[in-house]
Amino acid sequence: MGKIILTGDRPTGRLHIGHYAGSLKRRVELQNSGEYEKTYIMIADAQALTDNADNPEKVRQNIIEVALDYLACGLDPEKSTLFIQSQISELCELTFYYMDLVTVSRLQRNPTVKAEIQMRNFETSIPVGFFTYPISQAADITAFKATTVPVGEDQLPMIEQTREIVRKFNTVYDEVLVEPDALLPENQACMRLPGTDGKAKMSKSIGNCIYLSDSADEVRKKVMGMYTDPLHLQVSDPGHLEGNTVFIYLDAFCRQEHFERYLPEYAGLDELKAHYQRGGLGDVKVKKFLNNVLQEELEPVRSRRKEYEKDIPAIYDILKKGSGEAREVAAQTLSDVKRAMKINYFDDADLIQAQVEKYR
Amino acid sequence: MGKIILTGDRPTGRLHIGHYAGSLKRRVELQNSGEYEKTYIMIADAQALTDNADNPEKVRQNIIEVALDYLACGLDPEKSTLFIQSQISELCELTFYYMDLVTVSRLQRNPTVKAEIQMRNFETSIPVGFFTYPISQAADITAFKATTVPVGEDQLPMIEQTREIVRKFNTVYDEVLVEPDALLPENQACMRLPGTDGKAKMSKSIGNCIYLSDSADEVRKKVMGMYTDPLHLQVSDPGHLEGNTVFIYLDAFCRQEHFERYLPEYAGLDELKAHYQRGGLGDVKVKKFLNNVLQEELEPVRSRRKEYEKDIPAIYDILKKGSGEAREVAAQTLSDVKRAMKINYFDDADLIQAQVEKYR
Repeated sequence: MGKIILTGDRPTGRLHIGHYAGSLKRRVELQNSGEYEKTYIMIADAQALTDNADNPEKVRQNIIEVALDYLACGLDPEKSTLFIQSQISELCELTFYYMDLVTVSRLQRNPTVKAEIQMRNFETSIPVGFFTYPISQAADITAFKATTVPVGEDQLPMIEQTREIVRKFNTVYDEVLVEPDALLPENQACMRLPGTDGKAKMSKSIGNCIYLSDSADEVRKKVMGMYTDPLHLQVSDPGHLEGNTVFIYLDAFCRQEHFERYLPEYAGLDELKAHYQRGGLGDVKVKKFLNNVLQEELEPVRSRRKEYEKDIPAIYDILKKGSGEAREVAAQTLSDVKRAMKINYFDDADLIQAQVEKYR
Repeated sequence: MGKIILTGDRPTGRLHIGHYAGSLKRRVELQNSGEYEKTYIMIADAQALTDNADNPEKVRQNIIEVALDYLACGLDPEKSTLFIQSQISELCELTFYYMDLVTVSRLQRNPTVKAEIQMRNFETSIPVGFFTYPISQAADITAFKATTVPVGEDQLPMIEQTREIVRKFNTVYDEVLVEPDALLPENQACMRLPGTDGKAKMSKSIGNCIYLSDSADEVRKKVMGMYTDPLHLQVSDPGHLEGNTVFIYLDAFCRQEHFERYLPEYAGLDELKAHYQRGGLGDVKVKKFLNNVLQEELEPVRSRRKEYEKDIPAIYDILKKGSGEAREVAAQTLSDVKRAMKINYFDDADLIQAQVEKYR
């Protein structure tokens, strides 16, 4: 069996440069690497509803945005199966049975769940669906017999939870499920990019994100307004790199060739940083460079998005087709699962025969 | 809309006289009353698996036993829809979405869940599926738009949980679900019959149950061995009625006509009790009377069971047909639910059109 990828995003907003650096870019590389037999990309609307039950419209409206962002980044429906989680009913049924294999206290100990509960200020009013989402994720991953799940380090406990469920299921019932491996990012600078205001979290409500769908002008404005170093008041002042959003973004995005094209007076990023640190290099110059770097990266994404935006019904068709394909695979797994659990009574001639004989 | 009943049992063993007195007998009366448009009887195998995940074979083997007991009692597949819970995939999907509408602390406060957790000595190792089963029950009830759920008083918190979910769903999304009412038993003596040894709980492992499938001889032996009054050593001693299993069973089962047939020297149960209390009435005489009463009640059940046992595949056919009918109804409810939640994207021309216009 070849390797199979499962990954995805919650459709609670348009995707931004943090998603791009942290996962989307790599996802496209993985898709195109030829190393994977199948790549499943899931728009996790059902998961998004676990903490947006009161605001389903947000989730509903953002599915198309996420799909457009996916296609814009180069995810290719000919190579990857793009689908919507809620359209795969089988995932709910797998979740239902996996819930019998996990204890409440095990879920409570999950560090990712703990952190997310804290982040959302849920305290005691955690929706059950949110509390149990590691089990739902196990259903997503195992439904497609995924071997490989690209995640950040903070998500490792989720993958471990899936692995536990797989081992438990395979021990109690039968060897049906595949234990997945996490695939960690290669470039740490790309993970968890801060917002343009330097805050750790990008947030739509704060307005500190650069979206993949932002126009060139919007990107330029956001870059020129970025948080840098509050102590760097004069060009001649020494600048600091720690927490300096512009340099963090450069770490994530700039490559040697960008210097040749946009800043040939510097040999590379190290030289630029050194100049900034000793003083004499203004923020505006660095920001203009970052703007050039980002525009080069985002321009093809933006123009592909514009093309796709012209035919919205075609995007739904892609998602519908992908969901149909995904559903077939999940249905096969569910059928294997139910056969292993022996709850496929009506197809189980042995069971019926044994009971006929018992009552003979 | 007429009234609709949903009820059922966990298939973890053959049904006994406690089930019969507490619910089955009444269920047949309700079925035959003509007051209900539909009666759904569910064999709750998926719920039984929530605390029997390690022993699926027990659940699997007992489905046919419960079905035979149902038919033996007079549940009639022409009048009631008999089905197996796990064959209705839609119930898992409803459960999945209802989980977003209930908080973890709300579940923890459920008195029925608290009591059941204690009864099972789960402490911290409660399976998530067991912890969340009130939500799964809400799915069972609402899938069939049941108006009426026959339960004991101890189950009232479960119905209240369902009602809360219905109200929340209908408020957040749309008026789709029906708020059910509990139907409490008329005869309190019939609820929670003790075991033949006087212990509060009937248990297969203790062997203190009279099963509907027991032979006349087995019933007689169990009745003659029943716990009565440990202070009633001589026939002449005054006897006590409290905790006296034989009299508790008589309260539940004997009718005036039984005295005319089997004990014409007494006007009725009050006179029999008075004699027992003042002394001079032996346990054996009372037990023989109870045996006659029970045999009369159980004989038709037993002989119907024998008839049904002759054609086991036909029982599976009944369950398969019922499950097919139940599934159609549940699928319609799920479709209504998904439309109300507006997660039926591909069928939602308005959504697609709005997004076409947004990007025009």
